[in-house]
Amino acid sequence: MKTGTVFHILGRLLLFLSVTFLLPVPFSVYFHDGQVLVFLQSAIITAIVGGILSWMFVSDGELGHRDGFAVVTFGWLGLALFGALPFSLSGIIPSFVDCFFESMSGVTTTGSTILDNVEILGPSLLFWRSLIQWLGGMGIIVLSIAILPMLGIGGMQLFKAEVPGPTKDRLTPRIANTAKILWGIYALLTLIEMFLLIVGGMTFFDAICHSLTTMATGGFSTHTESIAYFDSAYIDGVITLFMFLAGINFALHFHGLKGKFRNYIKNEEFRFYLSVTIFVTVVIMIANYSAHIYTGFTENFRYAIFQTVAIQTTTGYGTADFDSWPNLLRLGFVILMFFGGCAGSTGGGMKHVRLLLLWRYFKVQMVQLVHPRAVSSVKLQGERVSNEVMQSILGFFFLTVLIFIISSLALAAQGLDIITATSAVVATLHNIGPGLGKVGSTCNFGHLPDFSKILLSFCMLVGRLELYTVVILLTPAFWRECKAPHYSWNQKKDTGEDKE
Amino acid sequence: MKTGTVFHILGRLLLFLSVTFLLPVPFSVYFHDGQVLVFLQSAIITAIVGGILSWMFVSDGELGHRDGFAVVTFGWLGLALFGALPFSLSGIIPSFVDCFFESMSGVTTTGSTILDNVEILGPSLLFWRSLIQWLGGMGIIVLSIAILPMLGIGGMQLFKAEVPGPTKDRLTPRIANTAKILWGIYALLTLIEMFLLIVGGMTFFDAICHSLTTMATGGFSTHTESIAYFDSAYIDGVITLFMFLAGINFALHFHGLKGKFRNYIKNEEFRFYLSVTIFVTVVIMIANYSAHIYTGFTENFRYAIFQTVAIQTTTGYGTADFDSWPNLLRLGFVILMFFGGCAGSTGGGMKHVRLLLLWRYFKVQMVQLVHPRAVSSVKLQGERVSNEVMQSILGFFFLTVLIFIISSLALAAQGLDIITATSAVVATLHNIGPGLGKVGSTCNFGHLPDFSKILLSFCMLVGRLELYTVVILLTPAFWRECKAPHYSWNQKKDTGEDKE
Repeated sequence: MKTGTVFHILGRLLLFLSVTFLLPVPFSVYFHDGQVLVFLQSAIITAIVGGILSWMFVSDGELGHRDGFAVVTFGWLGLALFGALPFSLSGIIPSFVDCFFESMSGVTTTGSTILDNVEILGPSLLFWRSLIQWLGGMGIIVLSIAILPMLGIGGMQLFKAEVPGPTKDRLTPRIANTAKILWGIYALLTLIEMFLLIVGGMTFFDAICHSLTTMATGGFSTHTESIAYFDSAYIDGVITLFMFLAGINFALHFHGLKGKFRNYIKNEEFRFYLSVTIFVTVVIMIANYSAHIYTGFTENFRYAIFQTVAIQTTTGYGTADFDSWPNLLRLGFVILMFFGGCAGSTGGGMKHVRLLLLWRYFKVQMVQLVHPRAVSSVKLQGERVSNEVMQSILGFFFLTVLIFIISSLALAAQGLDIITATSAVVATLHNIGPGLGKVGSTCNFGHLPDFSKILLSFCMLVGRLELYTVVILLTPAFWRECKAPHYSWNQKKDTGEDKE
Repeated sequence: MKTGTVFHILGRLLLFLSVTFLLPVPFSVYFHDGQVLVFLQSAIITAIVGGILSWMFVSDGELGHRDGFAVVTFGWLGLALFGALPFSLSGIIPSFVDCFFESMSGVTTTGSTILDNVEILGPSLLFWRSLIQWLGGMGIIVLSIAILPMLGIGGMQLFKAEVPGPTKDRLTPRIANTAKILWGIYALLTLIEMFLLIVGGMTFFDAICHSLTTMATGGFSTHTESIAYFDSAYIDGVITLFMFLAGINFALHFHGLKGKFRNYIKNEEFRFYLSVTIFVTVVIMIANYSAHIYTGFTENFRYAIFQTVAIQTTTGYGTADFDSWPNLLRLGFVILMFFGGCAGSTGGGMKHVRLLLLWRYFKVQMVQLVHPRAVSSVKLQGERVSNEVMQSILGFFFLTVLIFIISSLALAAQGLDIITATSAVVATLHNIGPGLGKVGSTCNFGHLPDFSKILLSFCMLVGRLELYTVVILLTPAFWRECKAPHYSWNQKKDTGEDKE
């Protein structure tokens, strides 16, 4: 492993983070919430650690296959750890475990919170909370479209080369180019949403925070009641639309912006995604109408589609207390939490394409049982999906269930009831936000034991990084043959070796 | 499809069943419970239907691949339908849906009941209930060792030729020979258990009923309190031992009876099975000791190992109300329900070997992510498991989860709470018996709506027949190219055709 390069990159990542600590400062000044010093301290601490890392370790070559896993995992972990600084330094959240949970929930775009009342954070910390979700979303788009396909994780190799880059072979220039295009789209959609929210009567501050967390499918709100606070059909509508857009593969938006709108409809994952939205909305409307929860069509439709898209895209905003809806819907939501957005979106979960392929795989197997000599294979967009990819996806499904089981058992061992334990794991592993029971949409994660909070933070990280990226670091095979890191005082010797 | 042969075999199966209706008659006479007429009526009705079927339809050739699925599914369904006759004709269970549920729970060796108080059935009907479990177990052993491997279901092809038969190619003689050997072992173990239970002070009647349902891993008891009724450490011990034996591949017992005891230890599935038993027992003991439920070591061990083996082998007997144990154990039991016995045993569930192979597959995938060029494959007993088999097993896992989700949603749609709905599905799909919540070990399935009972009966059937056998009949591909059945008045023409 190129440990030198890995640490060097991590150091530079922290240097970048230290700059972003300055962004909430204007809000603190404007709203007089007294957190200026907190953000400056956070920036300085992070800059010092980042500076030391990037100065001490030197790049010892291009990133290899395995280094990718380490950079991504430790990078996200670093963002979460240092992103927790403002919460901790402000003294508003006394326990560092809670600060870490909140920060991890941010950078992984999850949206679970340990706060009874989010308003006590004050404007600048609320903005920081939204900003780290948006930054996490930026990371995810590039990760899922440009990096993971190359690392061959969970069938993501399917999406190799969806966005063309100028060079084919070298990792770095390709990523940089792709990143610029995708981030442009991401920022543009965020701005449009912000504008539309302001038009709908939201304050500038609320509009910026909510557009940041919508596009990240994060779901942090500046109000404890979440989107229900605004109680506006227009705002619900705008947010539903942009959650839906954020759950679509950004490579499709890339083509869409070039005017190729037919690409959306031609895309099988998008069609499946849209069908799920429509189907679930209709089921919710029927169930809630039958249970006399909403009697008017418009009201029923508004809450049904909002909550469907909020869960399906793993945003996790709330306009209704869905934990009080009928049992069918409560269980249905837990299952919908597995869907996630499309691959290449900011949504978490398993991704619609994987579930689509699993379903097709199952159908092929059935046909082969009836006609053992028939040769048929799973197809996507008319092309055969290789056995290798299909096995990755089946393995991904198995690993999802495995992590879900082990984590739920660990939470139950701490005395949590079964509904709370299992739904807390699903809600964090798939980066949704709220679960059911004692972590339902009107509750929060604050009352859980510390160990549970740490475990759930780990679930957020594992889920966000498509499981394998993190889990692989826990295997002995990964750590064998690791070279010692290269420090800068070895630099000359290294360069010499590299030239050999 | 050879529809003629299929109906002909079904007819003969019913003729066989009609004879077994005579076995409870001596008990009815001895105990004066007045059900003699009920059993005679059942025997006559079944014999008439069976006779008509086997006379009307003639064999139109050897059974083909697809016919196997139809014979097995409709055969089991027929046993359940006609096996319900005594319950219905006696008038003790008024609703036919309830009778069908109870009978299906019998022939699939599940052990779920709709009765508040099983004693009201009286001795002969209680014996019938136990007998159909034992007959179901007989069917399952042959099905899983001799038939399913040939149909290539869910990786069962791994176990081809575990018990040698005299001919290789023709299905029928091979099955007949294997069946004789396995049934001999099954009957022998049942007799030994019965003897040991009588020694422990059980009445002859209770001993025969319980040994029938232990070896079938069925779990029907002659007492509402199940095995807790006897409150004897000796009886708990004997039953634990025989549940454990019934959960082992009968092909291993076949070698064991020949004195090859080392085959048990050499068998990787057996080692995994034993490890799970030990591990879960220890965890339960620690958890229950910590929660002050059992304080004495012996008492704690006795209840822990009994309940572990009862769930692990999918027998479902109860000596303790495990629904009042700590949440960790309640959730743990739901997960343990997925394990089932070993392949080739009477146990239900996914079977230990499938889970072992899934775990190994996952480990191989992890190594390949780290070393993309490494070639490694999943092994069992030192031999490479083919991709085809591995994909079958992954598909089986996916299908299990899919059926679990759809059925749970259907139950929740009828208003059942999430714990009851999900655990009812797991408990029936894996042929365990009791679930949690309102279908927990001190409750029963009687209060569920009729639709739920029918759905759960379907789950029992699907689970017992390794999912694919039944699900495949629901696909359009299966029913294409089906020939019309051959009636006996076409017999000559058929024979002529066969000679061509």
